[in-house]
Amino acid sequence: MLLSKRSRFAFNPNNETSRIAAKLERSGKKILKLSRGDPAVYFKTPKYTVEAYVNALQDRKTYYTEPTGLSELKKAIVDKYARDERVKFSEEDVTITQGVSEALQFVNAALINDGDKAVIFRPYYYIYMPMLKVHGGSAVIERYEEGLDWDIETEKVRKTLANAKREKSRIKYMMLSNPSNPTGTVLPRKTLREIVDVANEYNLMLVSDEIYDELEFNGAKFTSVAELAKGQPHVILNGASKDYDATGFRIGYAIMPNNDRLSQALKRSFADFASMRLSVNTPAQYAFAESLRNHVEHRRELRTMVKAIERRINFATKLINESRYMHTVRPNGAFYIFPKLNMKELKIKNDKEFTYKLIDEQYVQVTMGSGFGEPNHIRIVSLAPENVLGEAIERIEKFCRRYSR
Amino acid sequence: MLLSKRSRFAFNPNNETSRIAAKLERSGKKILKLSRGDPAVYFKTPKYTVEAYVNALQDRKTYYTEPTGLSELKKAIVDKYARDERVKFSEEDVTITQGVSEALQFVNAALINDGDKAVIFRPYYYIYMPMLKVHGGSAVIERYEEGLDWDIETEKVRKTLANAKREKSRIKYMMLSNPSNPTGTVLPRKTLREIVDVANEYNLMLVSDEIYDELEFNGAKFTSVAELAKGQPHVILNGASKDYDATGFRIGYAIMPNNDRLSQALKRSFADFASMRLSVNTPAQYAFAESLRNHVEHRRELRTMVKAIERRINFATKLINESRYMHTVRPNGAFYIFPKLNMKELKIKNDKEFTYKLIDEQYVQVTMGSGFGEPNHIRIVSLAPENVLGEAIERIEKFCRRYSR
Repeated sequence: MLLSKRSRFAFNPNNETSRIAAKLERSGKKILKLSRGDPAVYFKTPKYTVEAYVNALQDRKTYYTEPTGLSELKKAIVDKYARDERVKFSEEDVTITQGVSEALQFVNAALINDGDKAVIFRPYYYIYMPMLKVHGGSAVIERYEEGLDWDIETEKVRKTLANAKREKSRIKYMMLSNPSNPTGTVLPRKTLREIVDVANEYNLMLVSDEIYDELEFNGAKFTSVAELAKGQPHVILNGASKDYDATGFRIGYAIMPNNDRLSQALKRSFADFASMRLSVNTPAQYAFAESLRNHVEHRRELRTMVKAIERRINFATKLINESRYMHTVRPNGAFYIFPKLNMKELKIKNDKEFTYKLIDEQYVQVTMGSGFGEPNHIRIVSLAPENVLGEAIERIEKFCRRYSR
Repeated sequence: MLLSKRSRFAFNPNNETSRIAAKLERSGKKILKLSRGDPAVYFKTPKYTVEAYVNALQDRKTYYTEPTGLSELKKAIVDKYARDERVKFSEEDVTITQGVSEALQFVNAALINDGDKAVIFRPYYYIYMPMLKVHGGSAVIERYEEGLDWDIETEKVRKTLANAKREKSRIKYMMLSNPSNPTGTVLPRKTLREIVDVANEYNLMLVSDEIYDELEFNGAKFTSVAELAKGQPHVILNGASKDYDATGFRIGYAIMPNNDRLSQALKRSFADFASMRLSVNTPAQYAFAESLRNHVEHRRELRTMVKAIERRINFATKLINESRYMHTVRPNGAFYIFPKLNMKELKIKNDKEFTYKLIDEQYVQVTMGSGFGEPNHIRIVSLAPENVLGEAIERIEKFCRRYSR
């Protein structure tokens, strides 16, 4: 065996279609890429953020920061949560990471031994699973219910945890993505409160990925786990990439506001893992600190972006739901649409084959639902302008007609 | 057990002195920090590099790149090695990483199973060991010999590998740091050639950390493993941090120029692990591409920096070797001095106690030798101007006199 066992689990469901895309591009084809959740391709990163970044560079803030991050960025995060979520914690409760990806890595590296488990709701953001598995863990799968507009049936979760307790499973954390990647669902406050209560009953660390926390529309309202889980162990993951339209900065953060024994140990462990990679990009930390501090400017920029996303999502949702080959719950957050494919109508084996053939024949790149643990679905990133989205969905429709039974 | 087993190995030997430093700073003390290898604190990151970074930001290159990195940066790396080392490889052989730290993580994540081993020469750069251990590995320790100016006795290495083979140890790679952190040694070409031959005899992957490859002085001349190991599996680690004076960018890279089965598998695995964290900071990749392309400007900047480092290293080396409490081999690369403490003359238990007491009493932060696997030594980062280095060494001397037997 040349490689490690864990290397088999290192995976991103876009890898294969990206290879196909690169090959097609070399032969001169233009691909409509709706596979990466990257707002900065379509919306310019705000001027005030870029200016702060440029200033940091011109002041030669190009050295290492402390491994857990720049103090003034931590302070800006503390202030944001005090202001927007009425949640209080201190700088010591914050770790700056290289995107939410690295924060997920730290969670699993710090908590998971071989054979340990984590509760993951499917459809899940595709990185949760390989991150858990490369660290030796496996998932207890719970569900967002498509029939309930992707809401959670909390009683089912309670039963699962009761069973796990009887069987002495070592469940180390429960993972949420809210607003959800890939469904664009904003969890109702009531559901979230129930989930927080269940986690509390079973003394379970809640890890809440809230990277899309300011991207809601169609009247939805986001609630942070930080607001509801006071006094019990939880980790909030967030960062610059989505709300602040700065994916290429690679700046994320993890907050552990509580001071129970597990949270304390986890904070120390995050600092230890962070110290092994010395620092996060320094001028980008300064830039993000300013993005957070200047919340008037941020609100203005955000409003424009969210309005555009709302229009695009609703436009694409309508088109998709006019098709006899697909149907989707209407998203009210993030910027993804996750339609179910009507496989009975298609001469195609599964969603994997669907995405491979789609890019090959129609030059449209989307992500296979099975990458999110949800076969027979595809995820469509709906950030592009209406004409591009319209063209892409038309090609998908054409593709479906070509393979219609 | 709250945390994972691997979390016990996550470690940086500066962590404890950094905590002491932070505490002292809160009470108004000024610390002389000679513990982090960060040239950008003392030498301004070159203007042409910063300008390229600023241009990338103003052009809003703030989206994700491909997970393995920006094509034009890979091309600049290919061109650099063709130009400077007469080594040919292609863009597909390069992975851009978040510093050499992440490249080290990928090496271990891809290769190491529980119980596997790697050959590590001590004194080693302190991150090699925790990176190996958190992935379930352990080290076969070989030595740089202080009595031979930190050169390697290759026959000893050959014997070790012969024994390991008999005992059926699973040795996955052999790790080099050249020029060395912490000793500042530039390995002689002859030694390097022998090591490459030994690796070839035992069909062992060589991993060569060459992040200080352009920082030599006192007449030393660096040779890259890439030049000598043609046709056998090897990984070269390098990046923007040291020669290009841009630690805070967090841009490193790994090159695997060969196309044997192991190198091929490892390249694919690097791409898989990279895909789990989506991208490296994008504008910093553009900046580093320009740093590499504009080699005329780079040589000019480098020459100035290396001359200053040479003066500072030689100044500090002389002072250290005038002390009865310390002695060091003269470094001829990187920017570290790694003196041996004369423990017989000191009423101090070990190098760990030495560094903790030193910062507490004299406000000088250095790194304990045992962090590098080499007790009774300390590492002094010698990047500061002569007056600061002089002051620091004077305080160390005062400290030693205070604890003199």
